[in-house]
Amino acid sequence: MTDTVTTAPRAQRAARRYIYAWGGGAAEGDSSMRDLLGGKGAGLAEMTNAGLPVPPGFTITTEACNDYFAAGETLPEGLWDDVLAAVKVVEEQTGKGFGDPANPLLVSVRSGAKFSMPGMMDTVLNLGLNEETLHGLIALTGNERFGWDAYRRFIQMFGRIVMGVDGHRFDAALDAAKHAHGAAQDTDLDAAALHEVAQAFKTIVREDTGREFPSDPNDQLDLAVKAVFGSWFGKRAYDYRNNQKIAHDLGTAVNVVTMVFGNMGDDSGTGVAFTRDPNTGEQVLYGEYLTNAQGEDVVAGIRTAPKIAEMQHEMPDVYAEFQRIGRQLEQHYRDVQDLEFTIERGKLYMLQTRSAKRTAAAAVRIAVDMVAEGLISKEEAVARIDPAQVDQLLRDQFDPAARQAAVRIAKGLNASPGAAVGKAVFDADIAVEWVGRGERVVLVRIETSPDDFHGMAVAQGILTARGGATSHAAVVARQIGKPCVAGCAELVVDYTMRSATANGITFAEGDPISVDGSTGEVFVGALPTVEARFEDQPELQQILGWADGIRRMEVWTNADKPEEAAQARGYGAQGIGLCRTEHMFREGDRLEIVRGAILVANLATRAKAKRASGTALSSDDAEAVATFDTAMAKLEVLQQGDFEGIFRAMDGLPVVVRLIDPPLHEFLPNLEDQLVKVTKAGDAASQEDRELLATIQSMHEQNPMLGLRGCRLGLMIPDFVKIQTRAILNAEIAVKKAGGNPKAKIMIPLVGHVNELVRTKEILEAEALAVEAKAGVEVEYVFGTMIEVPRGALTADEIAVHADFFSFGTNDLTQMTFGYSRDDAEGGFLLKYVEDGILPFNPFQTLDDAIVGLMKIAVDKGRATRPDIELGICGEHGGDPESIAKCERIGLDYVSCSPFRVPVARLAAAQAALTSAAERDR
Amino acid sequence: MTDTVTTAPRAQRAARRYIYAWGGGAAEGDSSMRDLLGGKGAGLAEMTNAGLPVPPGFTITTEACNDYFAAGETLPEGLWDDVLAAVKVVEEQTGKGFGDPANPLLVSVRSGAKFSMPGMMDTVLNLGLNEETLHGLIALTGNERFGWDAYRRFIQMFGRIVMGVDGHRFDAALDAAKHAHGAAQDTDLDAAALHEVAQAFKTIVREDTGREFPSDPNDQLDLAVKAVFGSWFGKRAYDYRNNQKIAHDLGTAVNVVTMVFGNMGDDSGTGVAFTRDPNTGEQVLYGEYLTNAQGEDVVAGIRTAPKIAEMQHEMPDVYAEFQRIGRQLEQHYRDVQDLEFTIERGKLYMLQTRSAKRTAAAAVRIAVDMVAEGLISKEEAVARIDPAQVDQLLRDQFDPAARQAAVRIAKGLNASPGAAVGKAVFDADIAVEWVGRGERVVLVRIETSPDDFHGMAVAQGILTARGGATSHAAVVARQIGKPCVAGCAELVVDYTMRSATANGITFAEGDPISVDGSTGEVFVGALPTVEARFEDQPELQQILGWADGIRRMEVWTNADKPEEAAQARGYGAQGIGLCRTEHMFREGDRLEIVRGAILVANLATRAKAKRASGTALSSDDAEAVATFDTAMAKLEVLQQGDFEGIFRAMDGLPVVVRLIDPPLHEFLPNLEDQLVKVTKAGDAASQEDRELLATIQSMHEQNPMLGLRGCRLGLMIPDFVKIQTRAILNAEIAVKKAGGNPKAKIMIPLVGHVNELVRTKEILEAEALAVEAKAGVEVEYVFGTMIEVPRGALTADEIAVHADFFSFGTNDLTQMTFGYSRDDAEGGFLLKYVEDGILPFNPFQTLDDAIVGLMKIAVDKGRATRPDIELGICGEHGGDPESIAKCERIGLDYVSCSPFRVPVARLAAAQAALTSAAERDR
Repeated sequence: MTDTVTTAPRAQRAARRYIYAWGGGAAEGDSSMRDLLGGKGAGLAEMTNAGLPVPPGFTITTEACNDYFAAGETLPEGLWDDVLAAVKVVEEQTGKGFGDPANPLLVSVRSGAKFSMPGMMDTVLNLGLNEETLHGLIALTGNERFGWDAYRRFIQMFGRIVMGVDGHRFDAALDAAKHAHGAAQDTDLDAAALHEVAQAFKTIVREDTGREFPSDPNDQLDLAVKAVFGSWFGKRAYDYRNNQKIAHDLGTAVNVVTMVFGNMGDDSGTGVAFTRDPNTGEQVLYGEYLTNAQGEDVVAGIRTAPKIAEMQHEMPDVYAEFQRIGRQLEQHYRDVQDLEFTIERGKLYMLQTRSAKRTAAAAVRIAVDMVAEGLISKEEAVARIDPAQVDQLLRDQFDPAARQAAVRIAKGLNASPGAAVGKAVFDADIAVEWVGRGERVVLVRIETSPDDFHGMAVAQGILTARGGATSHAAVVARQIGKPCVAGCAELVVDYTMRSATANGITFAEGDPISVDGSTGEVFVGALPTVEARFEDQPELQQILGWADGIRRMEVWTNADKPEEAAQARGYGAQGIGLCRTEHMFREGDRLEIVRGAILVANLATRAKAKRASGTALSSDDAEAVATFDTAMAKLEVLQQGDFEGIFRAMDGLPVVVRLIDPPLHEFLPNLEDQLVKVTKAGDAASQEDRELLATIQSMHEQNPMLGLRGCRLGLMIPDFVKIQTRAILNAEIAVKKAGGNPKAKIMIPLVGHVNELVRTKEILEAEALAVEAKAGVEVEYVFGTMIEVPRGALTADEIAVHADFFSFGTNDLTQMTFGYSRDDAEGGFLLKYVEDGILPFNPFQTLDDAIVGLMKIAVDKGRATRPDIELGICGEHGGDPESIAKCERIGLDYVSCSPFRVPVARLAAAQAALTSAAERDR
Repeated sequence: MTDTVTTAPRAQRAARRYIYAWGGGAAEGDSSMRDLLGGKGAGLAEMTNAGLPVPPGFTITTEACNDYFAAGETLPEGLWDDVLAAVKVVEEQTGKGFGDPANPLLVSVRSGAKFSMPGMMDTVLNLGLNEETLHGLIALTGNERFGWDAYRRFIQMFGRIVMGVDGHRFDAALDAAKHAHGAAQDTDLDAAALHEVAQAFKTIVREDTGREFPSDPNDQLDLAVKAVFGSWFGKRAYDYRNNQKIAHDLGTAVNVVTMVFGNMGDDSGTGVAFTRDPNTGEQVLYGEYLTNAQGEDVVAGIRTAPKIAEMQHEMPDVYAEFQRIGRQLEQHYRDVQDLEFTIERGKLYMLQTRSAKRTAAAAVRIAVDMVAEGLISKEEAVARIDPAQVDQLLRDQFDPAARQAAVRIAKGLNASPGAAVGKAVFDADIAVEWVGRGERVVLVRIETSPDDFHGMAVAQGILTARGGATSHAAVVARQIGKPCVAGCAELVVDYTMRSATANGITFAEGDPISVDGSTGEVFVGALPTVEARFEDQPELQQILGWADGIRRMEVWTNADKPEEAAQARGYGAQGIGLCRTEHMFREGDRLEIVRGAILVANLATRAKAKRASGTALSSDDAEAVATFDTAMAKLEVLQQGDFEGIFRAMDGLPVVVRLIDPPLHEFLPNLEDQLVKVTKAGDAASQEDRELLATIQSMHEQNPMLGLRGCRLGLMIPDFVKIQTRAILNAEIAVKKAGGNPKAKIMIPLVGHVNELVRTKEILEAEALAVEAKAGVEVEYVFGTMIEVPRGALTADEIAVHADFFSFGTNDLTQMTFGYSRDDAEGGFLLKYVEDGILPFNPFQTLDDAIVGLMKIAVDKGRATRPDIELGICGEHGGDPESIAKCERIGLDYVSCSPFRVPVARLAAAQAALTSAAERDR
């Protein structure tokens, strides 16, 4: 640090240091000080230290911002003196004077928080101009038009951003001037016209704010600094932080930077560029620049900016220097940079460097390339990919060219990624009907409810006008892997007219629309899509391959059918963590068989118990037993076939088969429907319908979630355990006989008391012995349980005595531990809880920490009893990156998730392992 | 220990010692060895050591029994030799010989486990008799008839008990002989006739078992010992132990005792007696005796036995000795004794002493008297009363004489104690109707469901044909303090005929019946009852007063109405732990007001939110707000009145008022009923009914137990919190103004996340400030929460920051931690779980240990945050003695239970404190 940049006064007071300056080749800050200096300030300091050409300036720290609010929105004591001292240093370094009419120092004032944040104050350029310094500027540049243009721009920006004047009034005045002078473009206005415009702008400020536009540069700076601070608690910034879980006490820094001018003639210019293509990841400079322009011109697109490659021809030396600097910064930051620069009379100035935002495809390619270049390690490459980007890469995308040309109707929340094309329908029933006749539809609703599920399930995608990222539509869409744009507030849906309108564009039922769940955009018509094929993405596979080498946890999948199993295996699944046997009950004509069994299940079971105790059966009883056994025998054959398919698909890998779980009435018609049917028919109601109603009523439960399901079912009707055991083991025998290598694990659901497991195991083992005896071979299987009832977790030490593995069923565990019925809560109070911040997030999406604590109790108790117990998770959380990190922390052996989440989970598990390693090293 | 009683052989082998003998004034065992010797053996040894006249004998230990089973039901090595050696010692002491025809030693063989147990082998007398020794006995006694009578009795008892012959066959043969000889009584049969009977009995044995009746005394002894061992795993004994939670590995001892004969003439006799009256507790010898009789004659009631006081006149010396012995044993054991004795030719022998079973009234009086006598301490007195006895003392009883004379219809489970008299009704609606016109009714149902609650609430008692101790009827009856006989399987209920039949007796609707919930009996007609008045039971109050001095935990009550509060206070309640505000919603015309509010609650709440954000209301919205506010204002006034009543009744004591808890649809008509109503009416259905149906459907939840209830409700519809807060605080102000001392604690239900508490508190505190401002006074109140959601317990440290107290809602905590819906489970799988031993007990009756563990987590975490946090329980477990003991162990400050359980809880809390103190001292 040289003397020239020391801002002495406060440093000597041993109080809080509010200002960090840079200039003259050295800076007081560096890139490690993002918390204090914000991203922009840290970047400017770092570039200065790296010897890059940065105009001198200084950063007012985020602490100053916090102290400003703590002091009731007044500048903390001493700050203003420090600012003046820092300005003096800049004056010395530039040889200019702030407010000096002869050689005026002009500055830009920019906010710069730790995280870049929409809604924060952006930039005020040319601060320090007034009628006197303007004339100095004109004299120095010899360019009157440039001077007046700079001045009117300053009034316009300062008026709008700092003083809160409606920007449209300035635009209107400028348009009026152009009209009056017959000018087509801003650049067609001459100095005199711009002089008039500046005066008109001042009048607007006076009228709108009741104050004169400030002419004293110190007043301007004072107001601008306060405006930057104030923008920290602006509504949009505040909401954004809430949404992104960014703390409100970080505060923003303020950067005061010497102005350099890209609009001083054809040897001047300005631009923005990425060190690699942020869309594809290709290693070429990517960006735009404009000669004789200020930065805002590029951003505003007032003139069409040429690609940055053009600069090579127009200013070869500057281009070469810029290329060198880009490479230097990439090497320095070991990441692709997003740069802002200005060329003032042939001299290049760097105004910003930051890590570049990039598409999912670019992120993956850049990470792979940088490993090849030796710039980053494989671990860093893995750590840099956002798991959500992996998810995106596995969804179909719209063709980029077609998308460019498409008419956008509206933009909402990107609630569930992927591209969906179909005819708009406004009703779930119609969705089902149209899909039934071969149409593809997009379901459009004001908001969705569980009643819409059947429509959502068949639609290509979902679009709602209301509801946030945790709305029913969003949650369900992610769950079933459908693209969804939610909370598209611009969209006015009219169910009566069966149409929707946004931004003047109306589409009716049957009109094709395209919905991009990755960006939140909705387009007119059917855009062509590009299929996302995992096998066509070698770089993604490369990254996931590295992830596999890093992660400790295995990634398994929840799959109920052979084709799902095969898909998941293609995605890298290392086993099936949850095969829900009852999901097969609904296939084809099985539901009829299942219903037949259920209707007599209780009667038949009681009759069998009577028979076992030596009582002779009545003919009714005997008939029930016969009907039941016939249906169950059919089911057993079908299930064995299912299991054979799954074992073949997962040959050599573990398959956890869960015995029947849901309450039986789920397989019967709905009570209300049947009640209405019988009531309507009155005396004409058939005997069959009446009996069915009576059975449904007898099985009806107040709270089926807490009722007769899971292992309770198997203990009440042991035949379910028996036939499923036989089907699993006989399938193993059959597959093995055919040369396969099946690895079955049998899992008991909903165990809350160890005796439930013990009794079920007794039934199961007796049956297994019978199967082995009949087949004359030994069958391997492993026996374990779900931990999904809080009491099960709390007594895991007792349960582990009888279980080779635990699989955490975190859906139910969350339901019971919170006392939330997911079906009821997510469409109701839970949504509002998350919206209102009562809950920080939806615990059904991301594992709640209290649930994780309960799981930890179970992990510790389980391992205390059985140190080698295998521990996994098969709730939906198993595919959620944040939850995966929590599973890593409590030491699970694997996570199991839907097939299409497997790649995401592979990456997330690796990242979790890296984080854990870093935490251990700390 | 003298040489004479040492059974040397095994003692020298340093192996397990199987035999402990007594005789000649000394014994090898004593009363501390109940585990090894059983209660009877320990008592005989102790009496011998105390110098009392006990016929010599020995005990084979419980360990021998266990080793017998361990060795596959063969006598463990060496045991038989030891038995023979022990017999030899007895021979020496008595001067008689086992199997010696000249001077035969006869013995009795009796089982004797640690706990007296129905279903165990009782007693075989006269063992050692055969045709030879019989003649020796006759020669010695000079009484042939006595000899043959002893012999036939021996064959009969041994045949039935040891050899398993159906006892009825012996009875029939004896009857046939009496018939043949024209004998009215057994005693009318002469020696010759008894000889014939003996031969007939032997034939029966041969026919029934295919074996000869054993004549060798050693064979007899061998068989008898094995029979005693075998009876340990007899079905009834096994079931009894399961039921009473007695371990199966305790084993039973076998006592072999020299026979003494009470039937050797008029200077002989036998009897049983209590040292005090076991019915009243009065300090007089109470019992019966017979001259010239064996013990079984007294028990069998063959002759009417005179009161023991008669003995004073017939055998004054023996009586005086017996009195002295009785006093000595009472002093020795410091408890009332149940004695068996025999007088053989003028000499008194003691055959048994054990603590006497006694009625509830006697238990209390004896305990109080013994404290007065200086025999036991107050702590011992308190420890000796079974809490269930306290409960009994508070219930009305049938007049004993009337009961004696009554016709019993049937007997079921004694599900809830007390005497109920009323006209039988078979329908809850009819119960309400009849009670409305001034009748008293007993509700008779096959089984009850929540739909019957209104009938149960107005009935005197409840009688069901199905369901166990945990059936809906039983649980609800105990809860509301009604006598109940459940699971009366003999009863066939015919709803169509409105009648019920059991054992040939039929009663119809309107017929008076009497139901004894303490014994499970049902009688014809209206039996007179004796009212149980707490204030008339000074001894009970004395005991409870002592208990109050011993216990650490306070006893509060759950009361929703002033009269309940007053009753509980009379019983000694020290506060209200749970006042359920919504229970008042159903009173009188309130339900209509509540429904009116509920129907527009959501609409009105949304409209108010709109209004708050500046949006103008539509006329529909405005109307909803007006309707809602009007209804809520009415409710507020009514609730304030309720609270004033409660605060007055509990003046100076804490009252925990819980804000509204149940889901709102509970106050609306049932969905199915309304659906049927509207469907039936078809097009003629009224607009109102349709709208009501729509509202009910919109509020319908899949799992209301886990849905919108508790604090969730208050957060969705804040007006509930507001009006209840105002009603509570304004009631406090009014009562205070009138000179009272109200102490309100406001409790928030169903908190699972600390933010729920924080937000509710915000709403509540704002309202409290408004009330205070309006009234111009400060109002005291304490703010706390229920811990009833597992997540609440797990995060109690966070919650305690904002709560002055926790009250454990163990009903919900049990539901959610087990994942059981009580409504569904108790009538279904839970019943079977308990029956099948999958669960050791019903966790809704007694706190499960895993639940206690979870509570302990909450206690520890809560105290870590707030060391002085007040901790209580207000779930139903608060009135269950076993659960109260568990609450003591985790250090709760109070238990809260139904008013009529308060005395029980006072005693149980004191006993828990004593147990805890003893555990600490250990």
